[in-house]
Parts: sequence; structure tokens; C-alpha cells
Amino acid sequence: MANLDLMRRLTLSEGGKIILLVLDGLGGLPLEVDGPTELEAATTPNLDRLAREGSTGLTIPIARGIEPGSGPAHLALFGYDPLVYDIGRGALEAAGIGLNVGPGDVAARGNFCTIDEHGLITDRRAGRIPTEKGAEAVRSLCEIIVPEVQIDVQEVKEHRFALVLRGEGLDSRVSETDPLGTQLAPLPVRPEVDEAKRTADLLNQWIAQAREKLKAHHPANMVTLRGFATDPNLPKFQDVYKLNPACVAVYPMYKGVSRLVGMDIIETGAHDTPLDEFNRVADAWPSYDFVFCHIKATDSRGEDGNFDSKVAVIEEVDAALPALLDLNPSVVVVTGDHSTPAKMKQHSFHPVPILIWAPETHRRDEVAGFGERECTKGGLGQFPATDVMPLALAHAKRLSRYGA
Amino acid sequence: MANLDLMRRLTLSEGGKIILLVLDGLGGLPLEVDGPTELEAATTPNLDRLAREGSTGLTIPIARGIEPGSGPAHLALFGYDPLVYDIGRGALEAAGIGLNVGPGDVAARGNFCTIDEHGLITDRRAGRIPTEKGAEAVRSLCEIIVPEVQIDVQEVKEHRFALVLRGEGLDSRVSETDPLGTQLAPLPVRPEVDEAKRTADLLNQWIAQAREKLKAHHPANMVTLRGFATDPNLPKFQDVYKLNPACVAVYPMYKGVSRLVGMDIIETGAHDTPLDEFNRVADAWPSYDFVFCHIKATDSRGEDGNFDSKVAVIEEVDAALPALLDLNPSVVVVTGDHSTPAKMKQHSFHPVPILIWAPETHRRDEVAGFGERECTKGGLGQFPATDVMPLALAHAKRLSRYGA
Repeated sequence: MANLDLMRRLTLSEGGKIILLVLDGLGGLPLEVDGPTELEAATTPNLDRLAREGSTGLTIPIARGIEPGSGPAHLALFGYDPLVYDIGRGALEAAGIGLNVGPGDVAARGNFCTIDEHGLITDRRAGRIPTEKGAEAVRSLCEIIVPEVQIDVQEVKEHRFALVLRGEGLDSRVSETDPLGTQLAPLPVRPEVDEAKRTADLLNQWIAQAREKLKAHHPANMVTLRGFATDPNLPKFQDVYKLNPACVAVYPMYKGVSRLVGMDIIETGAHDTPLDEFNRVADAWPSYDFVFCHIKATDSRGEDGNFDSKVAVIEEVDAALPALLDLNPSVVVVTGDHSTPAKMKQHSFHPVPILIWAPETHRRDEVAGFGERECTKGGLGQFPATDVMPLALAHAKRLSRYGA
Repeated sequence: MANLDLMRRLTLSEGGKIILLVLDGLGGLPLEVDGPTELEAATTPNLDRLAREGSTGLTIPIARGIEPGSGPAHLALFGYDPLVYDIGRGALEAAGIGLNVGPGDVAARGNFCTIDEHGLITDRRAGRIPTEKGAEAVRSLCEIIVPEVQIDVQEVKEHRFALVLRGEGLDSRVSETDPLGTQLAPLPVRPEVDEAKRTADLLNQWIAQAREKLKAHHPANMVTLRGFATDPNLPKFQDVYKLNPACVAVYPMYKGVSRLVGMDIIETGAHDTPLDEFNRVADAWPSYDFVFCHIKATDSRGEDGNFDSKVAVIEEVDAALPALLDLNPSVVVVTGDHSTPAKMKQHSFHPVPILIWAPETHRRDEVAGFGERECTKGGLGQFPATDVMPLALAHAKRLSRYGA
């Protein structure tokens, strides 16, 4: 039986309260063959205590050897098999900024770019214009009219925006327009199946008008569209887990995937520190029995290749942790969605350290602190990330017995 | 999504080069309760260094508790779920000696045996006649004509040959003829389904003629047929993994399974030592990005029940290992296809030690050397052998990200 069906059958509407703290890209690698990983190098007295008192292990986000994208990696942590729920980034991005993607709608991620007088791209990100400039350009795009469909456009951040096409007979199986290089022209949208011909045609009409409207917005004088997707229609936390869930995250994508599974999105500030985010968790705590809290900076510093900065972010999270623990949650899960070793400057396939702290129900292991090598010895072993939710619910005493 | 579908979707055509070194039947058992296994008893400074520097674990070839045959165990290492790709030994044997098994063909493994004047088997292997004698007997079998089908016969080794039946409407679901004992007559071929009646009839006609033809070839005066199989039509490494693969193996069966997955078969000598085989890998290395190298003697000495000889083979492999490492592969995987403990004198179900050495991407564990007990502490944990290829490809940076 698929995980979610089993959960739907066994979950109770009462039980303990759960915090799922995700340090994005937490897993790391040593820089030198004998050296520590970022997490091992960080001084983390609070996380070490939780690891000692709780159970630890390593999660496999998608499958062994597979480097996860952020969307599927979070779906896995939420208990949704990402190989089954294969969701386009367009839907995640749109959901992240609060743009509704309904059944039959087609969503896409948009980038402003710069083209020269020959129509060739000179900058795929339009010089990373400030968000305000992006919002101005988006206002021009909102004036575009294409027959028979409604097109919603909304700025995301800097040169990025989201687009949702609404109408009859739309199909998201169309090709992307980003040529993935400069000195190349944006590609036309092409249907990947016959049913998507009309959608491709409508999008090309919109793009042609966009080019005219954006002439005044140099360097944001053209667009590319990627990640076409339709409503993923995901099962909701309320239904599957009988939880009343909330999300505290700064970045749109993470809010998006949380909204798609039914979480309330708590308002955050663009420059929230980990402590700011934990204080927002504390404010929301009385109203929810599950809070997902997402820390982005671990991943960003990993992608920058900055080992020491990633260590510093982990230490900052550790120092702020009492703000969460003071809420007396029944269960605290601390993990990452995937690894982002500074050494590799990108997401990687390596398993991710996890600790589950639940004073009433956990079985201790012999792990001395929170780190990759310690977690290898942990009582949870190595397991698919889709099992994190069942374990958290079990520790929260929110699952009934299977069979008599 | 099945492993191979996911691989087909994510594999890149560029990346590092991989060596998969399989010591057949590598896993072992201690003779005394407190003693070492064969691998633990062997002095293996090179393997120990790779294990220390790399990641280790234990693979489960088929499923927990299942004793693997060599064919399915290798398919698993190549990433093909052996419970899905359930291939008859006849097809493997035929492919191993270069006999093509096409769609609709039926292949079988043949044994010469000795029968007495009453038709009862006195030696199931015809005194293990030398290969030249087997070839002589095969030449007689090639003269047999059965209506409407073409029958190719080719010697394998000693008393063993392979047979392929080609024609319309054939079906491999027929019973074997080896009674698995002496003082018993060979069994007739029986159809296991109605559709296979004609095939059984044709094979029985062929066997009756074979008996006549072989009267002059005592002790090889009769045949038994086993492992009826049709073309398994396996996905190929080139398609699934975008690899250009080669196989260095001495025994036909291993060449056969390698050919079935698309590998080029490098010529070897019947008496190649491990170092000889490694030198053949080195010669082939510039032309390939994946080389599978198979060492048979570990398994043979295990089946002989000769603990010390198996130890000696492992030490010989270790001593020759620099010939492989000098090629500067991006990834080296050393493992077995299954366990063959000398104590048991047969294949066994026990998990198999594995090390993956990939200096740029592996995460160290606390393992001090290559052996069953050390691997139990390894960072890879215990995992299905079908995950070896995804891990190797990931370390070789030949997989793209799953999802955005």
C-alpha cells in the first residue's frame, strides 16, 4: 500500500505537536579526505544534545545516487513519493507566490532577459534587476491580451516571475523557451503532443506581445518561459495526516510546495534570520499541530562553495534552537531536504543527516552528536525520506495500530 | 518509477569513467565462530586503503535470504531487477559463447552424459570429457535435421554445449530433461503450457536423433537439456546509462550476461590470472567509459570448500590492483555478485561487501579495511545490488538532477 493510503487509514486527529525543521542542503562533504563535513565542523551544542537524546540516521531523498531538486526533495519529506508526484516547477513557483493553479490551468516560471538588436540574448537574467524593476516590467506584461484565455503574471524576485494561463483545453506539455546560453535567440514554444498545439500557439502570441511591451524596460526587454506545469492536485495534510499544518519559510518555492500540500503560509520577512523564523513559529504555535520551518541559507552557502559560511549558518540555527524547544513540542525533526556540499557547489545525491527527538517515545542509540558520520551509526539507519512523516506521526502518537 | 526508467531519464552522456570489479562469490563466512571470513583473513593493503578512503557497505543481491544464481546476481549489479528480468540460463549460456538468441528463438544449456545399455545415466557429465572431445560430439549433433526449424549447437566447455532452436511458433515453456541423478533415464521434454507442445515435440525428435548420432562418442553418448529460455531482449547500457561499456571476463556465462546488456566483450585467455585480466582492462580503457571486470576463482575456490585458496585468490587480486588504479578511473567499485563461503561450498544468501572509491565525491565513513564486519559499519549501509549502478553513475557525475 502506498504510504499516503496507509497514513489516511491510520492517522488520528489527536496527538502531540510536531516541528519539522529543514536546513536546506544540510548534508555535506569534507574538503580534505580526513576532514569534517560542514555539520561536523560546526559547534552545535543544542543539536548534539538532541542527537544524543533522540534517534538519528540518514535519509535518502529520492533514491540512491539521485541528486534531488528542492521541490521533489520537500515533497519526499512531506511523505509524497516524488517519483509518483512528479510536479513541474512552474506550479511550485506560482503556488509559492500565492498564484492559484487550478485544474486545467498551465503555470510557468518566467525570467526577464536582455536581448540585443538582433534578438539574441546577451544576459539570461537581465542583469538580475532589483525586484522593484521586475515588478514594473510585470505590470506591462499584465496589459497583454490573448483571445479566449486569462493570463495572470506576478513578480517573484529580481528577474523572475510566474505566469498562469487559465481557460479551456490547455495542455502543459509544451517546450521551454530558454536556449540556456547567450548569443542565442529565445526558442519558440513547441507542442510536445498534438493536444498542446493551441497552448503553444497562445503562449507564442503572448511572448510576441511581451517583446513589444518590454522595449521600454531594458535590460528586462525580453522573457523566457520554463517549467510548464498544471495543477498537481496533491492530497492535503488535513486529509492524509489529519494535521493542521503551517509553513514558516522565506523563499517562494518552499511556500509553494507547502501550500500545495495544504499548509497555511505564515508571513515572513525577506531578511528573516533563523531566530526571526523561530519566533514566527512560536507566534503561530498555539494555532497549529504541525509546523514546517525552512532555513534556506545552508543551501545557498553550500552552492556558493563557502564551507565556513555554511558552518556559520548551522551554528546560528543551533544558537537559536532554544526558541523552538521552549515551545515544548512532542516531536522535533531536524534534517535537510538534500545535501549541498560546499565542496561540490551544488545539490548532491548523498544521504542527509536526520535527528528525531521525542522524549517520550524515542529509543536511544550510541550517537554522540549531530553529523554525517555519527548519523551513520544512528538507530534509524538509512531510509527513504518519505518515511519521515510516518515516524514523526508515530512519535507524536497520532497513528493507530495496523490490524488487530 | 523503476530504476531503469529513472536512469534513462537522468543519465548524461558525459562524465567520469567507472571500473566495476566483481570478485565472484566474494562474501564469506568464518570457519570458527570467532574466526575471520575469507576476505577478513586475506592480507589486502590496496583494498583496505580503498575502503578507508571510500565508502563501504553490504549489498543484497536479490532479496534478503535469497541465494542468488550467477546470472540474476550479475543482472542486479548491472541495475536490472532480477525479479523483473527473469532470464533463463540457456539464453545466458548461448549469449556467452556468441550464439545469437533472437526474438522467438529458444535456447537451452546442453550436457553430454553417459548412458548404459538400458538407457540409464551412469555419469551426468560424461566423465567431464575434454573440450576437444565435446567439440567432436557437437559436430555430430550439427548434422541432425528436424523439419521446419533450424537448430544451432555449439560447444561451451568440457561436457557442456549450448543449443538454439530457430523457427516460427516456438515457446520456451518446456520442462528440462536432466533427471538430476544416475541410474535414471533422461526425461522427455514436456510442454508446460499448450502453446509449447510443438516445441517439446521438435526437441524430443532432436534428442532421439542425438542419441543415434552419439553412439560413436562414448562416454558422451547422450545429452540432457536444461534452462530453456527465449531472447530476454534486455535494455542496453548504451540506451539506459549512456555508457560505452566493455566486459573483461574469462567464463562464457559472464560474457553472456554482459553481451545481453550491450557490453563489448574483450578477448581473454582461458587461463588468465587477475593481473592478466587487469592488463586487458588497461588495454581496452581508452575506448570505453565503463569496464566490468570479472574474477571467477574466488567463487570456484569457495565452491571447492577451500578457505585458504579463496584467501589466496583475494590476495592475488589485491596485489594486482595497482594495474587498475593506475588507469585513474573516476570511480572504482569492488564487490561480489553474491557470497560463496568456503564453509558452505556453495552460493549463499549473505549480503556482499562493497566498496565505492571516488576521491572527488565520496563521504568517508569510519571503516578501517575491507571485510564483512567493517562493511557493516560502512556509510552505504545495506542496500539492494540494483542500486550499485545509480551510485556509481552519481559518483562519476553522469546523472542530472531529479526535478528543479
